[in-house]
Amino acid sequence: MPLSANNPDRKSWLHVDKNSDFPIQNIPFGVFLTRDDIITIGTRIGDTAIDLGALHQLGYFKGIPLTEDIFLQDTLNDFIADGRKTWRLVRDRIADIFDSENTSLKNNKKHKEVVLFRLDEIEMQLPVLIGDYTDFYSSKEHATNVGTMFRDPDNALLPNWLHIPVGYHGRSSSIIPSGIPVHRPQGQTLPGDAKEPVFGPSKLVDFELEMAFITTDANDLGEPIPIEEAEAYIFGLVVFNDWSARDIQKWEYVPLGPFLAKNFASSISPWIVTLDALEPYRVEGPKPIKPQLEYLQYKGKKSFDINLEVAIQPKGAKETVVSKSNFKYMYWNMAQQLTHHTVNGCPINSGDMMGSGTISGPTPDSYGSMLELSWRGENPIKMKDGTERKFINDHDTVIMRGFCEKDGTRIGFGEVKTELLPVFSKK
Amino acid sequence: MPLSANNPDRKSWLHVDKNSDFPIQNIPFGVFLTRDDIITIGTRIGDTAIDLGALHQLGYFKGIPLTEDIFLQDTLNDFIADGRKTWRLVRDRIADIFDSENTSLKNNKKHKEVVLFRLDEIEMQLPVLIGDYTDFYSSKEHATNVGTMFRDPDNALLPNWLHIPVGYHGRSSSIIPSGIPVHRPQGQTLPGDAKEPVFGPSKLVDFELEMAFITTDANDLGEPIPIEEAEAYIFGLVVFNDWSARDIQKWEYVPLGPFLAKNFASSISPWIVTLDALEPYRVEGPKPIKPQLEYLQYKGKKSFDINLEVAIQPKGAKETVVSKSNFKYMYWNMAQQLTHHTVNGCPINSGDMMGSGTISGPTPDSYGSMLELSWRGENPIKMKDGTERKFINDHDTVIMRGFCEKDGTRIGFGEVKTELLPVFSKK
Repeated sequence: MPLSANNPDRKSWLHVDKNSDFPIQNIPFGVFLTRDDIITIGTRIGDTAIDLGALHQLGYFKGIPLTEDIFLQDTLNDFIADGRKTWRLVRDRIADIFDSENTSLKNNKKHKEVVLFRLDEIEMQLPVLIGDYTDFYSSKEHATNVGTMFRDPDNALLPNWLHIPVGYHGRSSSIIPSGIPVHRPQGQTLPGDAKEPVFGPSKLVDFELEMAFITTDANDLGEPIPIEEAEAYIFGLVVFNDWSARDIQKWEYVPLGPFLAKNFASSISPWIVTLDALEPYRVEGPKPIKPQLEYLQYKGKKSFDINLEVAIQPKGAKETVVSKSNFKYMYWNMAQQLTHHTVNGCPINSGDMMGSGTISGPTPDSYGSMLELSWRGENPIKMKDGTERKFINDHDTVIMRGFCEKDGTRIGFGEVKTELLPVFSKK
Repeated sequence: MPLSANNPDRKSWLHVDKNSDFPIQNIPFGVFLTRDDIITIGTRIGDTAIDLGALHQLGYFKGIPLTEDIFLQDTLNDFIADGRKTWRLVRDRIADIFDSENTSLKNNKKHKEVVLFRLDEIEMQLPVLIGDYTDFYSSKEHATNVGTMFRDPDNALLPNWLHIPVGYHGRSSSIIPSGIPVHRPQGQTLPGDAKEPVFGPSKLVDFELEMAFITTDANDLGEPIPIEEAEAYIFGLVVFNDWSARDIQKWEYVPLGPFLAKNFASSISPWIVTLDALEPYRVEGPKPIKPQLEYLQYKGKKSFDINLEVAIQPKGAKETVVSKSNFKYMYWNMAQQLTHHTVNGCPINSGDMMGSGTISGPTPDSYGSMLELSWRGENPIKMKDGTERKFINDHDTVIMRGFCEKDGTRIGFGEVKTELLPVFSKK
């Protein structure tokens, strides 16, 4: 059954630029602080932010089973926990309210005054309280590049990689929304010529271009989620910059995996684009190179054609796009990841976040990290301002963007934009 | 300044057995469901559970700055966030209320009826909403045993181990209190003679004997915690069974660390014993084998003499104690762990939990896992009922206990007790 909100012919009475990421077919969900210092759940059409708390109070969601305060919250967790049926009813209703044929809100100046905001009147917040965050390692090209650089070019992929959507746990407390700057981390590293580690600022701060999905309550302790059900528990996606300190990582990660090299910060785009909005952009995923165990075998199109790019903007200069990749390159898809994560009975809750792992494409200009783009610093990347980058410099701003495009409709994520500040010092 | 609640001469008007873990000098904090189906925060003296929500409503905490509903909550997070000064005021007040010299509550039958509960009238809950859970790997003996078995006996400790309190992120959603049974997990393993992995129940389910500490809000993103401040952010400790599936772990853990081998369940004892209550049991830690970087250097006694034991109880049989260890064997202490965790600016919140890693002692009967006790299954452990164990069988109950003892006062943790059920099947 096609989702009414996805109807490509629908137009909104709100202005939407031709290249906007947020036509009426998108209807993402986020949390923002309004000009009146109120936190609310909202959506966005074009460059207009829409206060769903106010819309609900004014009765626009009549007939949909929602608690009174469901949108007057500082996180989306409870709304997400209401489940897919409710998300769809709400998204369809929003599409109707803002449809160019519908004049009920359009012609109500008083209502519009409390519901609609210009983007410069609001401040985007973290959209969910992330209970648990897992990061996967699901791009074959990325895993191959890293294996080639740090292990053995002839056996770049580890023996388990083609069988397991390899993942590991990350830190929730340091996940921040776009716009919050990040300090260069300090830590232990083992310089190439040293016998003992030294302490100091990381010299190799890097981004990782990822997508991440947000889940709803899915299962109880002990209960696996079959692969055919997995997507029903995925609310939506964000673009995700998994900041990494390569020199700290190299010294600390054996045998239990990356820790301080990652948990100083991870940045996400603030609008969660629903899996429903991405329906038209489903594509076939890569063919399995080796047979996969039965619990990971799926039917249908489980990959998504989402164009991704990364730009670096030195302070006061123009940005330079350093990578163009695509979410469809992922070898393991989200349904496989979620199924694998729960096959042992691990419980998944509303507001959990799962990162894809760095998304590298097949060509060198599609790699998803400076580590790969500059090949460990051997091939510095030229910036438009004439400087070069091996990794990220202090006061560089890293910008990631994602969007789908097909038949004249574009559904995008906006951006996740983060400045790297120098090492923290107590004022 | 000695803490008044720790006064060893104090006696309570509540009955306390000679070998109780919970004399009036303990005063741990927990969350329980009462006979009236109300969730409240409480403490325990002897075998009496005390409803702190009711005590507060009756005015017994007058003069202490507490919000009205601070104890009428289903987690301790907000109380812990109030900080050490408040914890100490509350603990001292509880000691006064139940001191044998104080008759105000003792002689008030009506108040006692709503404040005091027998243990069989309550049901212990998870004491905190765990935001982030980190597990360290801080026992030299454990790391050496594992390194000897799986890597190279001559270089059992990895090069970073003596420099870094190695840690990694775990899963919060599957942390459960004592008493909740756990299903044997299923997953991928690579049998010794196989070329391709197989799917099925783990054959090597194991416990890991650990302690874990619970933190309060400590720092903002970017801000490190100096080692001399670290302990101020530790609220208290629990005994922790970090369930592990060794066969799943072996196949999945390279290069990003254990994942499904651990996140099917982790069990904690339900009463958080405060760091304050453990003051009298401070001891010197092991001397550093190699110099440690300045940020990890500490002064004073940062280790704690806590006796630990693990017993296995086969269904319908008597338990057999299989390990006796001690928290003081940890090479890296809690202050070092917390300081290391934040040296890169990673934020620590109220309710975060940090596990010690398996606590193995120097002798084979003090190892903290079946992997080590049975040495990969080569030396099965004899049970009192005549059976043997290499790992944990279905319907075995694993029981861990911890207590300190000195000068006639015993401060304990009670137990964490968990039955291993067979693989989950949908009813």
